Amino acid sequence: MPTDHPLRSDDGLVFGGDYNPEQWPESVWLEDVRLMREAHVNRVTIGVFSWSSIEPREGQYEFGWLDRILDLMAENGIGVVLATPTASPPPWFSLAHPEALPVTADGVRLIHGSRDTYNPAAPAYRAAARRLTSAMAERYSFHPALRMWHLHNEYGTVSYGPQTDTAFREWLRAKYGDLWELNTTWNTAFWSQGYGEWEEIFAPQATQYLPNPSHLLDFKRFSADLLRDCLREQAEIVRSVRPEVPVTTNFMLPSWNHYDQWDFAAEIDDVSVDHYPDTPGIEGDVQVAFGSDLARSFNGGRPWVLMEQATTMVYDYAQGRILARDPGKLLFNTLQYLARGATGSLFFQWRSPRAGAEFFHSPMVPHAGENSRTFREIVELGTTLANLHELAPPPAAGHGVNQNRVAIVWDATAWWSTDTRALPSNDTAFLPAVKSVHRALWLLGINTDFVQLDQDLSGYNLVLVPSKLAASNAEAEVLRRFVANGGHTAIWYFSGSTDENLNVRQGSFTGAFADLLGIRVEEHFPQLEATALKLSDGSTADCWAEAVELRGAISISNFTEFPLAGRPAVTKHGVGMGTAHYLATRLGEDALRTHLRRILNDAGVSPEHPAAGYGIEAVRRYAGNDSYLFLLNHSEETVDVGIHGHDLLTDSALHGETTLGPGAALIVREPWAEQ
Amino acid sequence: MPTDHPLRSDDGLVFGGDYNPEQWPESVWLEDVRLMREAHVNRVTIGVFSWSSIEPREGQYEFGWLDRILDLMAENGIGVVLATPTASPPPWFSLAHPEALPVTADGVRLIHGSRDTYNPAAPAYRAAARRLTSAMAERYSFHPALRMWHLHNEYGTVSYGPQTDTAFREWLRAKYGDLWELNTTWNTAFWSQGYGEWEEIFAPQATQYLPNPSHLLDFKRFSADLLRDCLREQAEIVRSVRPEVPVTTNFMLPSWNHYDQWDFAAEIDDVSVDHYPDTPGIEGDVQVAFGSDLARSFNGGRPWVLMEQATTMVYDYAQGRILARDPGKLLFNTLQYLARGATGSLFFQWRSPRAGAEFFHSPMVPHAGENSRTFREIVELGTTLANLHELAPPPAAGHGVNQNRVAIVWDATAWWSTDTRALPSNDTAFLPAVKSVHRALWLLGINTDFVQLDQDLSGYNLVLVPSKLAASNAEAEVLRRFVANGGHTAIWYFSGSTDENLNVRQGSFTGAFADLLGIRVEEHFPQLEATALKLSDGSTADCWAEAVELRGAISISNFTEFPLAGRPAVTKHGVGMGTAHYLATRLGEDALRTHLRRILNDAGVSPEHPAAGYGIEAVRRYAGNDSYLFLLNHSEETVDVGIHGHDLLTDSALHGETTLGPGAALIVREPWAEQ
Amino acid sequence: MPTDHPLRSDDGLVFGGDYNPEQWPESVWLEDVRLMREAHVNRVTIGVFSWSSIEPREGQYEFGWLDRILDLMAENGIGVVLATPTASPPPWFSLAHPEALPVTADGVRLIHGSRDTYNPAAPAYRAAARRLTSAMAERYSFHPALRMWHLHNEYGTVSYGPQTDTAFREWLRAKYGDLWELNTTWNTAFWSQGYGEWEEIFAPQATQYLPNPSHLLDFKRFSADLLRDCLREQAEIVRSVRPEVPVTTNFMLPSWNHYDQWDFAAEIDDVSVDHYPDTPGIEGDVQVAFGSDLARSFNGGRPWVLMEQATTMVYDYAQGRILARDPGKLLFNTLQYLARGATGSLFFQWRSPRAGAEFFHSPMVPHAGENSRTFREIVELGTTLANLHELAPPPAAGHGVNQNRVAIVWDATAWWSTDTRALPSNDTAFLPAVKSVHRALWLLGINTDFVQLDQDLSGYNLVLVPSKLAASNAEAEVLRRFVANGGHTAIWYFSGSTDENLNVRQGSFTGAFADLLGIRVEEHFPQLEATALKLSDGSTADCWAEAVELRGAISISNFTEFPLAGRPAVTKHGVGMGTAHYLATRLGEDALRTHLRRILNDAGVSPEHPAAGYGIEAVRRYAGNDSYLFLLNHSEETVDVGIHGHDLLTDSALHGETTLGPGAALIVREPWAEQ
Repeated sequence: MPTDHPLRSDDGLVFGGDYNPEQWPESVWLEDVRLMREAHVNRVTIGVFSWSSIEPREGQYEFGWLDRILDLMAENGIGVVLATPTASPPPWFSLAHPEALPVTADGVRLIHGSRDTYNPAAPAYRAAARRLTSAMAERYSFHPALRMWHLHNEYGTVSYGPQTDTAFREWLRAKYGDLWELNTTWNTAFWSQGYGEWEEIFAPQATQYLPNPSHLLDFKRFSADLLRDCLREQAEIVRSVRPEVPVTTNFMLPSWNHYDQWDFAAEIDDVSVDHYPDTPGIEGDVQVAFGSDLARSFNGGRPWVLMEQATTMVYDYAQGRILARDPGKLLFNTLQYLARGATGSLFFQWRSPRAGAEFFHSPMVPHAGENSRTFREIVELGTTLANLHELAPPPAAGHGVNQNRVAIVWDATAWWSTDTRALPSNDTAFLPAVKSVHRALWLLGINTDFVQLDQDLSGYNLVLVPSKLAASNAEAEVLRRFVANGGHTAIWYFSGSTDENLNVRQGSFTGAFADLLGIRVEEHFPQLEATALKLSDGSTADCWAEAVELRGAISISNFTEFPLAGRPAVTKHGVGMGTAHYLATRLGEDALRTHLRRILNDAGVSPEHPAAGYGIEAVRRYAGNDSYLFLLNHSEETVDVGIHGHDLLTDSALHGETTLGPGAALIVREPWAEQ
Repeated sequence: MPTDHPLRSDDGLVFGGDYNPEQWPESVWLEDVRLMREAHVNRVTIGVFSWSSIEPREGQYEFGWLDRILDLMAENGIGVVLATPTASPPPWFSLAHPEALPVTADGVRLIHGSRDTYNPAAPAYRAAARRLTSAMAERYSFHPALRMWHLHNEYGTVSYGPQTDTAFREWLRAKYGDLWELNTTWNTAFWSQGYGEWEEIFAPQATQYLPNPSHLLDFKRFSADLLRDCLREQAEIVRSVRPEVPVTTNFMLPSWNHYDQWDFAAEIDDVSVDHYPDTPGIEGDVQVAFGSDLARSFNGGRPWVLMEQATTMVYDYAQGRILARDPGKLLFNTLQYLARGATGSLFFQWRSPRAGAEFFHSPMVPHAGENSRTFREIVELGTTLANLHELAPPPAAGHGVNQNRVAIVWDATAWWSTDTRALPSNDTAFLPAVKSVHRALWLLGINTDFVQLDQDLSGYNLVLVPSKLAASNAEAEVLRRFVANGGHTAIWYFSGSTDENLNVRQGSFTGAFADLLGIRVEEHFPQLEATALKLSDGSTADCWAEAVELRGAISISNFTEFPLAGRPAVTKHGVGMGTAHYLATRLGEDALRTHLRRILNDAGVSPEHPAAGYGIEAVRRYAGNDSYLFLLNHSEETVDVGIHGHDLLTDSALHGETTLGPGAALIVREPWAEQ
Repeated sequence: MPTDHPLRSDDGLVFGGDYNPEQWPESVWLEDVRLMREAHVNRVTIGVFSWSSIEPREGQYEFGWLDRILDLMAENGIGVVLATPTASPPPWFSLAHPEALPVTADGVRLIHGSRDTYNPAAPAYRAAARRLTSAMAERYSFHPALRMWHLHNEYGTVSYGPQTDTAFREWLRAKYGDLWELNTTWNTAFWSQGYGEWEEIFAPQATQYLPNPSHLLDFKRFSADLLRDCLREQAEIVRSVRPEVPVTTNFMLPSWNHYDQWDFAAEIDDVSVDHYPDTPGIEGDVQVAFGSDLARSFNGGRPWVLMEQATTMVYDYAQGRILARDPGKLLFNTLQYLARGATGSLFFQWRSPRAGAEFFHSPMVPHAGENSRTFREIVELGTTLANLHELAPPPAAGHGVNQNRVAIVWDATAWWSTDTRALPSNDTAFLPAVKSVHRALWLLGINTDFVQLDQDLSGYNLVLVPSKLAASNAEAEVLRRFVANGGHTAIWYFSGSTDENLNVRQGSFTGAFADLLGIRVEEHFPQLEATALKLSDGSTADCWAEAVELRGAISISNFTEFPLAGRPAVTKHGVGMGTAHYLATRLGEDALRTHLRRILNDAGVSPEHPAAGYGIEAVRRYAGNDSYLFLLNHSEETVDVGIHGHDLLTDSALHGETTLGPGAALIVREPWAEQ
């Protein structure tokens, strides 16, 4: 990251949101500026989805309005995150380049009328996106309002069709070299799928019955790499004009898995994320912690950008509801994001669109106007963030914004590997498994990072592997070395059953992890949904069991019922200076916390603060040379906590016992002695 | 309506059904006539879906069978409603005009093999339909059996594809004039949808994600106008030959919304409807009242034609069952239709088809033949209707067949506006909202009409607006004037939040209704499905709440719980001589009736008869200069009612207290003094 | 069947499974042979889905590996069932013959990437399949390892599209001769479907609304005949080379209905089946009995081949789980298959595929390898079967392998006739109705065959007709003669309501069965899902009722509630020497068994053994001139049974009272006196 990184400027914490002045007459712009100033807005994101306003006909640019709005922002001291609007080609693009439209697996060619109607593999799309990116980079790289490039928006488009097929074959040729290797890896001898020519391979479009899982997995990898190439070529363009402007793209967390987030992070200067909790109450708060921890981890432990959140608490597509946040909840959740490393808070979007697809999406200035609870809470939040400016500096060199002792393994292949049909159980999905472990730790007051198994793990005491069906030998070796050197790990059922290409491990389903765990898994016992399994320690489990054979490990807890009575359900294996735990079943909520407490104890990990856990969130954030203890009460109870330091929110000193009511928060600058 | 309107002839109440002699050998025809005479059938509908029998090859007509059957009907004194069979082009049409086949939003071209396989926008279809209509009009307009033209059948086809796109663009050009206006109204700056050429606009076919709601709404309007044009050109053809033959087309009530029913009604002489209750018991009876009130209202308060009902009570596609009606129920429900203005009762269809898609659909003569409960009840019903001939004359000039004081707003835009994605809640749909208010009034013994807000409302005491998301300034002004002149209104939550093109109202979500209601709505609070809201009057609500600010109105009932505790849930505002009520939440069943009772009281509206309500239906029908009080007991209890007049069903005089058992009915010709 | 039928050789019971050596390096083959010998494997099925390995490019054969593996099998005394691999054309086929790919009803052309991607109506596919079959027949017909031809795999592909349309028209022309006949039979006058040219007829692809049921039924018949033609031409090819090699194809039982199983059986020497119970516990055991009885019946009462079962108990796609079998359950279920006539047990598949669509499907050698419960149970099972060799000979000439007195009618038209939309109830499906009757008999200890109504029924005391909507006059006459000659029958509601082309019977819904039953059914009364009907004998029913009029029959049990109170629910009619029973409703479980017990009593049928019923399964299998009584305890109780003979499993003599614990089994060679 360049040293004159504008985000590291004196702006303090960033506050603002997506701003689409092209949706409004210029008379509204001045009103916008007035309200932005009232709300202490210091950052707006401009250009997202503005392609048809910037290039209304092919090659014909309309930069006038954009010039004027950027000047207006500069004049008012509002920094601009400038987006390349390449996520939605305009209608003219569909007519000029119909072959570049996205195609579904069923062969339906989609057309404009929504957003993201392009095939990332289409040369015509890529050329148009590059041309537009260049034009914007040339025009605005040195504009005084510019603070950051926001490339594209929420990458996530997957397309089938001839142009995809061509690109997919090139990708496969690069991976496998020859067809023999591909046929072997995909085991194409099964069901007569042996390929004799590269041209016989297609993206996994509609077929008669179950697809080949290795084929599917490679297509996910290809699609991810394709999106990364789209990102990379935009990044190269803007950096070629003025390399010191930081570059980001916004990740849609945590539910989109169309690319490898670690790979994407490597292409950009700062990770930014869009985050929309979809459940009210404490479960939504758990989601805030989860999304924040992912974002920070993808950004290498550095402060990260909350590019979009919403003033409504929940945009819940599944429930079909846009729920309002309770009063005060917006501030409370934003403090959570801050605690876990956000550089501030941006929103989608500044002003509610008058019409169009998301006409009731959450805004900073709602349809009802400035005289509204929403805008009043925005002003309050902006004021609060302005007062917290001392949190803005990055932590001292070499340190993360949070310093955690526990990490959870997150990687794209692990996720994609369970996203296939014909697994022994439909209940083996990656995301719910990871979420449940993170949630259990949050309830125990333990803060976590995410890691993948190709990085240095030495900073952690404990690395957890909730779901990793596909695991390579190299990944297993990283974990083994970590444990041998004194680290601790826990690995969950079904993990390691295949290699990185969904070839099942022979001999033991724990595969590459078998030696580390000191066990052999002989057989899977998926359970019907209603089945409850009893364990010898009195706890219950469900969903899955395994026939585990001890080969060095000891059993911590056994199954108690036919046909697995007396077989290990939870094991522990000492390796070198560390221990490796295995959970051969899906533990119930209480049991999961019990076993995690035991493992945390083995690993010597305790909460950030004695009061933490069960609804009291305690997170320590580092900024410059200082540390700040965030204490948030998510519970329904008032608690007393012993605390020393200076609370930024009330600007008052705390000396010992302090009362924290439900929904209350403290941000305590800590005395040096305590750090 | 021409004065020699054959429907106003001496036929009395009409009785009969769809008759498809082309499905049977001529030997069966004589049997049919015998049974029709036995059942007092005086009207049959011929020609529906007969295209392939009338024009078996393009341009080659087979009128012989139709001549013979019309002659046979005339000879036997059975009037004919003659249908243009244009709803189902024959197989030859698909081969001759493949471009005229319907296309789904996914691009699937549908082919014959069912019914309605044509694109109403296709010139080839329209030409074929006009040619056939002309041929039939020329041949049969002066046939002595002819009583009415039945144009097409159940208009409702929607198609995508190139011919639709062309017609849609023409329609948009006529509506908007230029693209700037369209881009502004649809807010195409959102998600880069700015159109630079008319050719860039398509029907809203499959796209990547959420469509533009304004685009969707205009496509619904276009599709509706297209069907109206289909109807209009057929009406012009038959009227050009013999204008005095009345024209109808049958509406599928209440669940089809493919066109604007008020618009359609304006094209025809009499509204006819197909009506199939889909629930047993009293809920089915509520549906009968609902469908009847719609039909009569669409027909301007005049007697309307029940073109199709079924002898089985329920053709329940959702439940996957064709339920039999309980004995006597067919007569009972038919009296309900009569009470609310039907000219008699027609059925689909005379004789069960031997084979084909609806081979088990309900008939008058079932597969089992004349020796069947079904046919025996048909004979009983026909006999009863023959005895009720004095109900047939239309009411005296200037009067409706029923004279109600309460009306509910029903309009196509209101319906279509909630038929989109990305609303704040999926539970805002128009039809359930309207049904629930109509049902509550029915249970209170209040009879209602339906109106739209571009008509004279002065005949009503109370106009209710259960669901009207999209509301224009002009509509709001109609309602305001109505109230100012002494009318009363109640408007439900979310109504008026947008203008007629789904542009959200700025400043207050009640938008154009804000002044009338004396409130400002600052924020929507959609609720999770399970949530129950408590109000200060002890009642409960769910689904939705709003932050209401009083600006002249008073609060009748408040929310009691965080975060809306103390905010108004139900308000009332005096305007001129009238009052305007607002319901900011979905009241529970009891609460809804309680508040309606209060509002009815304000509006000075009481039931048609003191005994009415809670299962006792009392409806007054006017015929000529007489009035007839229908009393129907839907409850499980025997009731005593005070009544004076002459009961047509038993042909006996009633003087005071009369006992009405469950399922019993009276039709009382009232003494002049009481009217 | 030729007298030197290799299956009748000295191999004893067959044991083994699908073997795909092409999925493994040759080094694994020797390991395979070692394990096969350890497990007493004497039969493997080779070639299923091996097309791309045998013909990797069009016309270029790779027989080397197949030669080697067949030699290896021969050397090790393992017989080979050799499959034509025509179920899955290789990728090159899609590119060479895109017009031969399957097309969905929506017009989506499917491509390779799974299995079965061909249109059976495509000449290019048929030519390729014939050419490959010829090549294999010429090369391997005289190979010493060959025991049987396994043609194709699990026939079941249905395709739409132009090549299908052409073949369908030919088929219709052959059936109907002229269009008048077709138009009449399909009643195309309904909904204007009259066909004027053969070219106007299409396979029933996507259309606007409900399709024509007669059209659908004929398409199912056509598709079935098409698959039969595919089978027939392969059978002709292999027989032309060496007629004495027996021919089979494997039926997917019981859920696939893509062809007429009786027709298929007529084309082959022995029926083989793939059978996968999908429920744990006794319900899965009921499924084993059901599948076995179907397989044996299709094979004319002769021993039949269990081509595929699984070591995991359940491959439950609906539940999304592959459940493990309980210990011992594999042996127990295999004894059930044996009891009901299996020639042994084959599995899918020998060795778990390393990767590919079914990478976690059940194997004989699991991923975990030979050191596994699975393989240990396979060895145990192989050893047991080797010891049961005396069961292998077919029963003495003219006798079935089981000799049952009760048969259930099973035919393809009956099944297909309920597989349509717009029936009076969605709950009239064939398969659940047949299963419930078979299950009730199994619980009563009664063993059954399946028959169709075009065969000699004289060997049976009782023929049951649980579901036969479409019934021809000829079928009704077969049943009438059977009863007149002293047979007994019971027919269930809705049966006979249409003729064989889904033309509804006029006059009485029991149609062709009316005289036999001595009743007339006037009206159907489908019931809502929740409704329970009470009968006069105290029992309950649901789902369906009918208005039955007695015309010679007597009522055994009446409905008791409005509107059918006092109308017959169950009737009985003496005809000649026999009786015909009718069940006008769906009896509850208990009521069904009660009435079956009564009918069995009338028919003089009792269980195979006094202890049979309610979880004790008693089946007598004949082999050579001996009979063997299988007794299996499915219950949770230990029972004592009186038994004399020699138990093969323990090789011990039994003289009277013997104890049978839960899950225990006996196979008792019976003394001659008892037979």
